[in-house]
Amino acid sequence: MTTNLELTLEHGYNIRSYEPRMDGHVSIASLCNQLQDIASRHADSLGFGFHDLEESGHFWILARLHIMVNRLPRFGERTSIRTWPSGNERLVALRDFLIHDADGLIGQATTSWVTMNKQTHRPDKPDQVLNRRFIPDREHAIVFPTKSVTRLKQGDYTADLTARRADIDINGHVNNVKHVELCFEAVPPEWADDHRCRGLDIQFRAEAFAGDKLRAACALSEPDADMDTMLHSLTRVSDDKEIVRMRSWWRKA
Amino acid sequence: MTTNLELTLEHGYNIRSYEPRMDGHVSIASLCNQLQDIASRHADSLGFGFHDLEESGHFWILARLHIMVNRLPRFGERTSIRTWPSGNERLVALRDFLIHDADGLIGQATTSWVTMNKQTHRPDKPDQVLNRRFIPDREHAIVFPTKSVTRLKQGDYTADLTARRADIDINGHVNNVKHVELCFEAVPPEWADDHRCRGLDIQFRAEAFAGDKLRAACALSEPDADMDTMLHSLTRVSDDKEIVRMRSWWRKA
Repeated sequence: MTTNLELTLEHGYNIRSYEPRMDGHVSIASLCNQLQDIASRHADSLGFGFHDLEESGHFWILARLHIMVNRLPRFGERTSIRTWPSGNERLVALRDFLIHDADGLIGQATTSWVTMNKQTHRPDKPDQVLNRRFIPDREHAIVFPTKSVTRLKQGDYTADLTARRADIDINGHVNNVKHVELCFEAVPPEWADDHRCRGLDIQFRAEAFAGDKLRAACALSEPDADMDTMLHSLTRVSDDKEIVRMRSWWRKA
Repeated sequence: MTTNLELTLEHGYNIRSYEPRMDGHVSIASLCNQLQDIASRHADSLGFGFHDLEESGHFWILARLHIMVNRLPRFGERTSIRTWPSGNERLVALRDFLIHDADGLIGQATTSWVTMNKQTHRPDKPDQVLNRRFIPDREHAIVFPTKSVTRLKQGDYTADLTARRADIDINGHVNNVKHVELCFEAVPPEWADDHRCRGLDIQFRAEAFAGDKLRAACALSEPDADMDTMLHSLTRVSDDKEIVRMRSWWRKA
């Protein structure tokens, strides 16, 4: 699908035994972990990874992630992910992904990232921060379905959670994919038992830290693309700060 | 070190970008995840994996895990783990591990496992359950330092936790390695900031489930092997059930 090989990385991921859920399949969060890993590897190899940005006083922040999959793998299976930076748009750098299993394409994802200035804690334009290398506009694996994720006004189901130290990553805040998992904690068990999440569109709006009391909420929304969809929110209780908003697509298991 | 190649498996693990903690190194829990994964792979390939035991109405339960490491890897590094079943002793099957990085041996581990009968919920002797294949006694990578882990009577530090749905694995209970992470939540932050855990001896005594309110507790104990050590407990609040007891070894970071 994408031909600029120098700016494309492919990497394989074995599903590890601790990843599958009770139904034997991994949750979509496991695939998000793979996306996060390959994005780090590719940025490192292109000279604008974690440590490269650190030198100019910047750090990467994932702003939004949209992933759709038609199949979730099991233990013993292996995915192969292909990724490429797909261009810069004003304040965000874009990166796309194709996810394959042994039989072919099983999913697509697109992401937007901010190159945050450590001092001002405001985004600097990625084409200035990443100026050592020209990032051409490239095709997308999938496009964000809306300009932004609709905010959930009133959740029908909620879960009260505390961010753990084990949720914190090298950036010192709750890891992006943990936010997906935290949102899922509010999904009613009877729903989670007989549905599988096949897609996510998640917008990261604020950081959370170990010890933060968080509230996950969700509600069914308008069906889309022949699938049930939900809206989710994750807020910090102390200051009512919106940490993430998310939309999810589900199919009967 | 071990020569019976047919009964030995080696497997490589890339440290994934979401695994390192703020100091850039993975926690010892990441290595425990690798042990758990390679144990599942090897049991599968030897014909006594998850699905094989399911057929005779049994399932594996990790009873105890002892791991010591002299170095914790970083993102971009790769470990290579070697494992072998090391014999059966009355009600437990033993399995050992050697952990290598690019420069050589960085750790050793030993584990004991119970082949639990699904119907009676009591252990059956592994040499009866695994009778399709003879498991010879083999050398150990490291031995359990005591007959059992000392129980923590009174914790100096505690943390109140709730088991999440994301903590549950294919067996329907909180994943073994999550128990290690949950125990760590009680370690005082100032200690965790300037020490690294270099060893664990953890005994799994009861299952925990999503929604369970748990209390992690810990206290400094007698130093051992030139290292600070701690005792830990994880108990369920509702019935005061002891979920795990653990001892940990620490060095200044």
